[in-house]
Amino acid sequence: MQPSPKELGRNIDQQRSKAIQFLRLHRGPRTLVLPNVWDVSSARMVEDAGFPALATTSAGVAYTLGYPDGQKISRQEMLSVVARIAGAVKVPVTADVEAGYGDRPEDAAFTARGVIQAGAVGLNLEDGREDADNPLVDLSLQLEKIAAIREEAADSDIPIVLNARTDVYLNQVGDPEKRYDVAVRRAVAYKDAGADCIFIPGLRDADTIARSVAALKVPVNILAGPGFPSILELEKLGVARVSLGSAPMRATLGLMRRIAEELKAAGTYVALEGAPSHAEVNRMMTDRAS
Amino acid sequence: MQPSPKELGRNIDQQRSKAIQFLRLHRGPRTLVLPNVWDVSSARMVEDAGFPALATTSAGVAYTLGYPDGQKISRQEMLSVVARIAGAVKVPVTADVEAGYGDRPEDAAFTARGVIQAGAVGLNLEDGREDADNPLVDLSLQLEKIAAIREEAADSDIPIVLNARTDVYLNQVGDPEKRYDVAVRRAVAYKDAGADCIFIPGLRDADTIARSVAALKVPVNILAGPGFPSILELEKLGVARVSLGSAPMRATLGLMRRIAEELKAAGTYVALEGAPSHAEVNRMMTDRAS
Repeated sequence: MQPSPKELGRNIDQQRSKAIQFLRLHRGPRTLVLPNVWDVSSARMVEDAGFPALATTSAGVAYTLGYPDGQKISRQEMLSVVARIAGAVKVPVTADVEAGYGDRPEDAAFTARGVIQAGAVGLNLEDGREDADNPLVDLSLQLEKIAAIREEAADSDIPIVLNARTDVYLNQVGDPEKRYDVAVRRAVAYKDAGADCIFIPGLRDADTIARSVAALKVPVNILAGPGFPSILELEKLGVARVSLGSAPMRATLGLMRRIAEELKAAGTYVALEGAPSHAEVNRMMTDRAS
Repeated sequence: MQPSPKELGRNIDQQRSKAIQFLRLHRGPRTLVLPNVWDVSSARMVEDAGFPALATTSAGVAYTLGYPDGQKISRQEMLSVVARIAGAVKVPVTADVEAGYGDRPEDAAFTARGVIQAGAVGLNLEDGREDADNPLVDLSLQLEKIAAIREEAADSDIPIVLNARTDVYLNQVGDPEKRYDVAVRRAVAYKDAGADCIFIPGLRDADTIARSVAALKVPVNILAGPGFPSILELEKLGVARVSLGSAPMRATLGLMRRIAEELKAAGTYVALEGAPSHAEVNRMMTDRAS
């Protein structure tokens, strides 16, 4: 059933090197910045801007295909986009695969296998649930999922970078005073289960970020954007990795809205000014297409 | 082999009504403006902005999937995106299917069948070729392609709106002094062969536009953008339909570049400001997802 790596055009040695190279980017000296991408052209644009690795945004990918965020898209559709992106760039690609598309550890492992087969070298696994009464996956189950992914990566001989995300802050779980302790307890457990990086979206306060980084002793990923400390400030706080989630993709949707509204209201084209030319984008898309 | 309309979830009567409604939008009183879209979220954004119909950009779709413009993408990949878009909006959708993905009239007919099966109600067919010595498809062959599409539409009982494009101006074919006559001769022949609208990209001069509209006595589509007459001016010139090609999609790529470059140079997030929120885009993508 499963196509072989050769059929997929993957080079296992090259993929392994990319995974190692991607993990190394979490160890400094600079903060790894990942402006998340959602299709091949956004990926090419970010790669061309000189970023050493790419991360996908699951929400952004879902939107382009007609779904809201939150695992409404199928695993297969998500991984198809990851494969297109990973096959079209030279730098390492990490995939946002939400909560792994299934409740069981074997679902997470199956998703990890798909990520590897897609040519990516990292993945995000989140612990948030869309259930107000029970907003986080049970810790023990989440640890089993992480262990299952680690095992799958070992079996595949690709040391994928596992970015374990806790949604304690993002989902505003429980008593605000207790969130830090809950997040750190989960993060330490995720690290011990095999996570390479801990992602705590929703964390924005510089003191709490610094305290988390010091407590965890593992690379920490912060979700940034307008209203957040700058990259330089986050770097000074010891943040290993900064990503932007779906914000870049949503910003482009906002531009599409401005273009459409200007056309409707004024019948002019100001919002289109400065777009890269047809010839330039064609060149960008041709260069490495083979 | 071919799934039935029912399997595809298409409602033939509804699709026929949409085709008629779309054609009617070419008959005034206002100019039909089509800010071209390339995926479901851009389509939803334009529909939500109140536009009564949507047109895809073949270049934009190709870029998102990793191809340069110009029929490097396969017919099937292009039509899959058209089907996703047409299935996700209520307004009529017209598909840019380049030169029909094949040199023969039967290729054009097969593509038209695919457009109809995808749920779209219109298509663009261009006569440009990527051959400097022979930059236009032979007129007689192009007329056979148009007739074959018309026949396919009749067989399918969906009166798709055929937008026949001549690339005389866009590809700067031959002596500039003779372009007008070549374009009008082709356009009249396309109309007589069954085209509902004539698309002359590359035409930007107000006098020549007015002259073409007067000569053709059929709805004329002008490609607009920065440097072109405004929608109101084009309306006064009698232009029935205005589209923007890949410019909106390229503008969003330009924004992605500004976001990435700002992150790299300054480590700040100004280019992300004003993006619609995660909650807002989720709502937009949920509303009509069923």
